[in-house]
Amino acid sequence: MQPLWDHLRVVLVSPRNPLNIGAAARAMSNFGFRHLRLVAPYDLAFREARSAVNAAAVLESAEVFPTLPEAVADCTLVAGTSSLGPREPKHVVHRLEHAAPLLRAEAAANPLALVFGSEKFGLGNEDLSYCHCLLRIPTREEHGSMNLGQAVALCLYELIRDPEAPVLTPTAARRAEAADLHRLTERMLEVLRRSGYINPRTESIEDKIRRLVWRLDLSAQDVEIWLGIFRQVQWKLDREAGQQ
Amino acid sequence: MQPLWDHLRVVLVSPRNPLNIGAAARAMSNFGFRHLRLVAPYDLAFREARSAVNAAAVLESAEVFPTLPEAVADCTLVAGTSSLGPREPKHVVHRLEHAAPLLRAEAAANPLALVFGSEKFGLGNEDLSYCHCLLRIPTREEHGSMNLGQAVALCLYELIRDPEAPVLTPTAARRAEAADLHRLTERMLEVLRRSGYINPRTESIEDKIRRLVWRLDLSAQDVEIWLGIFRQVQWKLDREAGQQ
Repeated sequence: MQPLWDHLRVVLVSPRNPLNIGAAARAMSNFGFRHLRLVAPYDLAFREARSAVNAAAVLESAEVFPTLPEAVADCTLVAGTSSLGPREPKHVVHRLEHAAPLLRAEAAANPLALVFGSEKFGLGNEDLSYCHCLLRIPTREEHGSMNLGQAVALCLYELIRDPEAPVLTPTAARRAEAADLHRLTERMLEVLRRSGYINPRTESIEDKIRRLVWRLDLSAQDVEIWLGIFRQVQWKLDREAGQQ
Repeated sequence: MQPLWDHLRVVLVSPRNPLNIGAAARAMSNFGFRHLRLVAPYDLAFREARSAVNAAAVLESAEVFPTLPEAVADCTLVAGTSSLGPREPKHVVHRLEHAAPLLRAEAAANPLALVFGSEKFGLGNEDLSYCHCLLRIPTREEHGSMNLGQAVALCLYELIRDPEAPVLTPTAARRAEAADLHRLTERMLEVLRRSGYINPRTESIEDKIRRLVWRLDLSAQDVEIWLGIFRQVQWKLDREAGQQ
């Protein structure tokens, strides 16, 4: 278990809607996080969330605390989330894009908390006073407040996103070798001659067709399909010619 | 209206749950996108979603199409989303982190579509055959399938995220000037001498206290609060001394 996944606590303060608790837990499970903490959740909300699908392990191990300071007691960095709204921020506010290096560096050595307020009110001033800094998801000023489950998903995604991750290239998308493209072009030219598309007066048609094929940027697999198509058409043309 | 916001179409194929349609619309509104298209939505789901809060403008202008090819007819790039699961991908698959430059470049000139499958089945093979490429949100293999509203929010966030955005520093967080830190240190030293924390035998205490203060990395505003605290304590010490 790498430190980030082991050290991050997702803290929901007074969540009211079981669907949002479930959605937060599901996003945690999607991205491999395990430690969900709930501060004074509405009892019914938490009970209903536990029965939600797709995030059973996270919900079963969720911890409930009466107050925020108790929920973050073991954390050396507490980052609150806020859409700010009309309030003048009293904390250092990190746009989410800028926050990940800071949070990952702390998580390398110590437990840390991402704190989310209730659906209706967000985090209050007392909650915020327990935070070292604020994260702001870069929503529009005119519509800043996000759905709780979506906000949790975005923050976790920013933490795990990895621009250096290897690019996945399916076998089917391996690019065709030039020799295959050449075979395809020759087959096409043969069919085009036989079908009358090319006539003896057509100039530089071979180069034109070759450029057409090269521009398709075909995969190795797709070249085989195209070859099969033209092979079949050629066979049919031969057969029709033989019957006349 | 910048091209990205004007050109992007969010396409939901056969969504079943009005809450998910509402959540997708809300995330679009949060990030400034306007064009929502629904392919064969369950009628009831769409009607209920229209009454959802917080995304009225997006939902009111949403368009409904009977089939996916009709919904993406004007788009020059169609990107499907998939958790892949056990299927061998038949498309070029971009991790979400890698996809934004490609999508933004296309959006600079042409309409493009982000396509999301139904909650239960994702995109089927026929749907996928209308896509130029696939996006994969980097979820865990063991739990790859995301909530629809969260998946939409993540894709839109990746498109608008801007690591070059200016860092927001609240007035309150302007760092203190060294002269203020010096005033605070002098005031503290005075109080510490008067209270007996420092005695004549204490060596190099001034440097120690100065380092303590500098390490606090105080804002200009917080220096004033600390100065007020020590000023008051000093006043009280003076008064008590006068009464003895």
